[in-house]
Amino acid sequence: MRLRNKPWAEQLIQKYPELISVSPQNMQGQWQQKFAQKQPLELELGAGKGRFIIQKAQQNPQINYVAMEIQTAAIAMILKQQVELRLPNLHLVQANGRDLVNIFAKGEFEKLYLNFSDPWPKKRHTKRRLTAPNFLKQYQTILQTDGMIEFKTDNQALFEYSLQSCNNYGMKFDKISLDLHHSSWAETNIWTEYEEKFSKKGQPIYFLAARF
Amino acid sequence: MRLRNKPWAEQLIQKYPELISVSPQNMQGQWQQKFAQKQPLELELGAGKGRFIIQKAQQNPQINYVAMEIQTAAIAMILKQQVELRLPNLHLVQANGRDLVNIFAKGEFEKLYLNFSDPWPKKRHTKRRLTAPNFLKQYQTILQTDGMIEFKTDNQALFEYSLQSCNNYGMKFDKISLDLHHSSWAETNIWTEYEEKFSKKGQPIYFLAARF
Repeated sequence: MRLRNKPWAEQLIQKYPELISVSPQNMQGQWQQKFAQKQPLELELGAGKGRFIIQKAQQNPQINYVAMEIQTAAIAMILKQQVELRLPNLHLVQANGRDLVNIFAKGEFEKLYLNFSDPWPKKRHTKRRLTAPNFLKQYQTILQTDGMIEFKTDNQALFEYSLQSCNNYGMKFDKISLDLHHSSWAETNIWTEYEEKFSKKGQPIYFLAARF
Repeated sequence: MRLRNKPWAEQLIQKYPELISVSPQNMQGQWQQKFAQKQPLELELGAGKGRFIIQKAQQNPQINYVAMEIQTAAIAMILKQQVELRLPNLHLVQANGRDLVNIFAKGEFEKLYLNFSDPWPKKRHTKRRLTAPNFLKQYQTILQTDGMIEFKTDNQALFEYSLQSCNNYGMKFDKISLDLHHSSWAETNIWTEYEEKFSKKGQPIYFLAARF
């Protein structure tokens, strides 16, 4: 979801180059340098205001996390928290998801998270959905061979599309839930801001974990 | 669902061997003989009281249909209607679904329908679910190379299981709906007896069309 512009955002982003990389070039395969230590690397694409990735980083100090987000107002919200928290295993990247293979190296990640991505409901926008084949191809490149994608959404049409798209691409499904909050994975699920706001309307949350 | 025993059922079944085959032997590859003319062959596994397959046969005279059902009380209900209707493109088979490859020849069918199969919710009964790998293997044998399975259920756990099982088996998904009655396929959907009775409780109907 699009956030209101925040006047302080640009300035904050410029002030902390050690915490956030903007449209990074020539960093492929060297992202481990951004963290306190070299350890498995995971990516959230479209990290929003960052609640999910911050909690992930706090709960799993043995994993390094990249929070990627294109919107200035959103990623500045994550940065604001990270300036306080200084989590040694979290780095922010402001860039477009279409440029993944130009930003990251082959097999650089063990896991990729897609949380409540834009559903792009119109047929002519199919290619913009983050589970469209053109994106899956990029994920396959930057993930390790048995690398996993974890995807959740409250949007029925997007989930139907994603099941079909991932299947047709040849991905193997590891976990599926049509009601994540009442599934065996509910306890370990980290709620995003969006999830908290919208799941209370009674809409179930759909969940898929799959690998290439 | 299990039906109450019907005292007249056995007698009726014995009376019409030209309309119903019981535990058929040595018919592999010769099922077309049971129909008025040779034309594409489709199978419903677990045909219940037969509303679905009878409507299918009425709507598609250019296709031959086999209605398979193990329960005497249920298949006798289909037979009762067929005795009146005498649809030239419908034949009944009373047999166990586990024996498919002993009853039908390799590639004998173009399509297979699974409607509201028993969910077998207990983990130790997984193998009895009609979308378990041991069944998929049989379907793959009796279906033509690009043969299609159409599956619908109101049972969330069974649908989750089936998506994963069919995907893991290597099947390709053609159509998915998490709410068939409000999807673009709603208009052509034929309602089963079960569907009419239970979908009114507000439970969505899940639908998958997939091929090997």
